Amino acid sequence: MRRVVLLTDFGTADGYAAAMAGVVAAAAPDALVEHASHDLAPGDVFGAALALSRYALRYPPGTVHLVVVDPGVGTERRALAAELDGRFLVAPDNGLLTLVVGADGPGRFVRLADRPAASPTFHGRDVFAPAAGRLAAGGALDELGEPIDDPVLLPIPDPSRHDEGIYGVVLHVDRFGNLITNIPESWLAGAGDVWMGFARVGPLRRTYGDVLEGEPLALVGSLGLLEVSVRNGSAAGRLSAGRGAPVYIEPG
Amino acid sequence: MRRVVLLTDFGTADGYAAAMAGVVAAAAPDALVEHASHDLAPGDVFGAALALSRYALRYPPGTVHLVVVDPGVGTERRALAAELDGRFLVAPDNGLLTLVVGADGPGRFVRLADRPAASPTFHGRDVFAPAAGRLAAGGALDELGEPIDDPVLLPIPDPSRHDEGIYGVVLHVDRFGNLITNIPESWLAGAGDVWMGFARVGPLRRTYGDVLEGEPLALVGSLGLLEVSVRNGSAAGRLSAGRGAPVYIEPG
Amino acid sequence: MRRVVLLTDFGTADGYAAAMAGVVAAAAPDALVEHASHDLAPGDVFGAALALSRYALRYPPGTVHLVVVDPGVGTERRALAAELDGRFLVAPDNGLLTLVVGADGPGRFVRLADRPAASPTFHGRDVFAPAAGRLAAGGALDELGEPIDDPVLLPIPDPSRHDEGIYGVVLHVDRFGNLITNIPESWLAGAGDVWMGFARVGPLRRTYGDVLEGEPLALVGSLGLLEVSVRNGSAAGRLSAGRGAPVYIEPG
Repeated sequence: MRRVVLLTDFGTADGYAAAMAGVVAAAAPDALVEHASHDLAPGDVFGAALALSRYALRYPPGTVHLVVVDPGVGTERRALAAELDGRFLVAPDNGLLTLVVGADGPGRFVRLADRPAASPTFHGRDVFAPAAGRLAAGGALDELGEPIDDPVLLPIPDPSRHDEGIYGVVLHVDRFGNLITNIPESWLAGAGDVWMGFARVGPLRRTYGDVLEGEPLALVGSLGLLEVSVRNGSAAGRLSAGRGAPVYIEPG
Repeated sequence: MRRVVLLTDFGTADGYAAAMAGVVAAAAPDALVEHASHDLAPGDVFGAALALSRYALRYPPGTVHLVVVDPGVGTERRALAAELDGRFLVAPDNGLLTLVVGADGPGRFVRLADRPAASPTFHGRDVFAPAAGRLAAGGALDELGEPIDDPVLLPIPDPSRHDEGIYGVVLHVDRFGNLITNIPESWLAGAGDVWMGFARVGPLRRTYGDVLEGEPLALVGSLGLLEVSVRNGSAAGRLSAGRGAPVYIEPG
Repeated sequence: MRRVVLLTDFGTADGYAAAMAGVVAAAAPDALVEHASHDLAPGDVFGAALALSRYALRYPPGTVHLVVVDPGVGTERRALAAELDGRFLVAPDNGLLTLVVGADGPGRFVRLADRPAASPTFHGRDVFAPAAGRLAAGGALDELGEPIDDPVLLPIPDPSRHDEGIYGVVLHVDRFGNLITNIPESWLAGAGDVWMGFARVGPLRRTYGDVLEGEPLALVGSLGLLEVSVRNGSAAGRLSAGRGAPVYIEPG
């Protein structure tokens, strides 16, 4: 009995996500089907990659992750399946797996065989879900297509370290308005004050309780990256910052 | 072990949908419970019928579909259970099953027996979920009530064909702003240019990649119906069109 | 095989909720994981407590409810697990269980043991989900921490009865704009007209069908409390009322 976890930007109200789940269930009647989210921002491949990286490897080995954010449906982009550390992933080849691969080595990849009868606008139902269903029914990766070794990876901006401090950017704004940056915890020993654009956020804190309600703070978030937050408020709103906004850390 | 798939317009935040799921789980402790959507537009029976038609028969035989969009709760409308092609459906008798029935023949219907202790405002929990739970526990359709043969069906507008072209309407706007019309693929052989209201959309295309980003196009969607889309954009927004908007196809 | 039901205010798009589900699945690979909601208003502990009370005891004994609305993460608030009438609940100790406890007696409570390696900002993943997973894998409440008997309970405003009538307040506004008050059904025998603020709503009705479309009405809702609704409309919008708004019932 395998578990299949869906992640898309389809919403749920049109029945697209349920159509995918139904195809999986028909192919693997005992599979446990879960919905991680269908509320991703439409076409936001990077946001999807980040969300996936939060949970993909938390699930046990044998889990099948079915991920479809696919602004390129109806173009020549490839369809992939991958095996990474015992988990399976099925997705269009547009970078969705970037942060999972980055975290855990390259894994194995196959290009899904073409399905001539597939709807040219809904590969989620007609290409990706059947592949996930086959894996959920106990199929092996190699049955799904020919091996490849060059999956598309998104370019993630690197932070930089200099004598005058550390420079990074905001990668993502979450539901609470937390600003998640690209600066890893390992760079933060002895860090000085953190700035978000022209706003001084202050020194690195451990957790929200270290400042008053409504005050901004910098801390290491649950991804192991520097985050700028407002306690029980929105840092994105308070600091007028979003994806790509510059963050700077003074020398300690 | 049966699978129960819920579809409502209740949202999730109030716990109504979970109350239904809990009633199902209590009646059928081994049932797999899935949530297709609770984000349907409140009271939009047609939108629910369309969403249901996308996935109901994709699930394997034995699946129980529990569908509650019920603006008539607290009136004399009947409560139904149906068996269609091996799948079960439980819903108020207000047309929710129109497009599933239409796709696959009439099936068998029963009127759910009254439950005098039911809350007069929450039949989802007290009438429909217990019926779905009983089916999920292996019950037969006939145990749930008396047979009927006249379920309510929604009037779906028919398209029309003339020497001067084909006329149809938009049935639904999906999350992406795609305009789904009532014109079937089988009418499109040799079709000329497609118009949405006063806007010429152009010839029938195969898929999004056939036009540039941000350009409108007409194509056959994943329901087998003519759709008008904008590649990686919203046709509803771009063309100011919604449900009921007229579509016209020139002779080829 | 146990069922784990998640309720949070995390949304789904960031992958936080799926990270919790993955931790549960890794600890209890056969567990059925369901998502009651992740769309609770951020930080709305009372709204979460009310939603939970709608469904917690509808699920069968053995169910594990994992509830995380936690504006106090990163403060000294305790982490709890509880057993109530055969169901398990795991939550921060901030009042989330108030209405379940209130409905069904005190139950048994333990304070979850500290996890020094937990992210100080994401106890949902690192504290609560592991505890839920252990219960789902068949663990006993006592394995999770030391017993306590003073869980935090929210102060719920009491209605009052006088010769000149009954006074109460709105506890919650649901998705449909229904105004759910704190006046129990048992007080309503012989009640006169219901007022919401300065607006006379009229006599107690049985169900929506008792008034015309768009008209306001007072009735006993599915929680057994007085509700003020508008048939197929929003009472909150129509009567400009929200949480805390006063309701008054004339003597009969």
